[in-house]
Amino acid sequence: MKIKVLKDILGANEQLAQKNRELLDSKGVFAINLMSSPGAGKTNLILQTIRKLKGKVKVGIIEGDISSTWDAEIVAKENVPVVQINTGGECHLDANMMQSALNNLPLKEIDMLIIENVGNLVCPAEFALGEHKKVMISSTPEGDDKPHKYPLMFHDVDSFLINKIDLLPYVKFDIDAFTRVVTGLNEKVEIFQVSCVTGQGIDKWVSWLLKQLKK
Amino acid sequence: MKIKVLKDILGANEQLAQKNRELLDSKGVFAINLMSSPGAGKTNLILQTIRKLKGKVKVGIIEGDISSTWDAEIVAKENVPVVQINTGGECHLDANMMQSALNNLPLKEIDMLIIENVGNLVCPAEFALGEHKKVMISSTPEGDDKPHKYPLMFHDVDSFLINKIDLLPYVKFDIDAFTRVVTGLNEKVEIFQVSCVTGQGIDKWVSWLLKQLKK
Repeated sequence: MKIKVLKDILGANEQLAQKNRELLDSKGVFAINLMSSPGAGKTNLILQTIRKLKGKVKVGIIEGDISSTWDAEIVAKENVPVVQINTGGECHLDANMMQSALNNLPLKEIDMLIIENVGNLVCPAEFALGEHKKVMISSTPEGDDKPHKYPLMFHDVDSFLINKIDLLPYVKFDIDAFTRVVTGLNEKVEIFQVSCVTGQGIDKWVSWLLKQLKK
Repeated sequence: MKIKVLKDILGANEQLAQKNRELLDSKGVFAINLMSSPGAGKTNLILQTIRKLKGKVKVGIIEGDISSTWDAEIVAKENVPVVQINTGGECHLDANMMQSALNNLPLKEIDMLIIENVGNLVCPAEFALGEHKKVMISSTPEGDDKPHKYPLMFHDVDSFLINKIDLLPYVKFDIDAFTRVVTGLNEKVEIFQVSCVTGQGIDKWVSWLLKQLKK
């Protein structure tokens, strides 16, 4: 019974996500769903990305959080349209929340939409929002064992960032072994090594984003 | 309707948790529920704690993970009884899973049970397992904004560890401001600054544990 209910919920979510995707396509907006553990660097990556794309691509942001407008306030300082979704306890965004957020964004004025999901390596992987690409961030202090423990998200993402590479000298993280495990779980994934503090590797990531936009 | 169902689930969980607690009490086992983001250092704290308590207190471990026996294998090397719970996709442990695990532990031979919950700052806070104390770990690279974004867990825990203080020189983390926010959300909480790499602060944490055991 429990499984049946879950299937129904996921089925309904999938239909709504499809509608969101059609709306985005009709307005010419490319959307990514950005997922990670709490504190892996989603907001800092968004800030770096907005700055690199300034003058080239018009970016809009959806900020997903349990409560608070902490990240939305930080991002809004970059003068881009931002909508905050507070899930009110839910541990992930879903297509229904995404639909409400899309109704509150000036989609005609946006080329690229970045959705910052709730910090969580489990549930966000199960709920499509209508995005074109799923992107995941792992940070080096989290340790290189995460793909073994949260395989679904690693398996499903299109693009993957290893963030906080500036901390590599101070933490136990075997970046080659980690990369091998991630590509073993997910052959198609593109991996970028970045530091949102020093800016290292951000150009390559932004090039990938721009390539997706032109597709 | 949705809220009603959630209330029923939480109510049923609470009843089972109470039974687990009674079982633990009848066997004289003190139990803590250890929660954090993925990679904050739960397993390393468990290893440090087992080593410090060796010869003084008999420790048993429950390892909660989505899938894999990664952590259980690491902990088992310390020659303590370990039971792995694989949640099969669920983003938190619940009292029902805990009950099965307790049936597979030699409770008569244990003084203290440490339950490592699934790495997640959201859902584990809502599900009692039957533990005597809730303990949370935050690590410095995650950033000092987490209490604003995941308030429920910070609000409910009895004891709180700030881990990876060896990385303080390399990350942006205002430990005094963070501590003020945490104690603002949770007056009763006891806070420990530790490094599971250097061992700094572990003695104070273990003293707290021993004090709880004697209560």
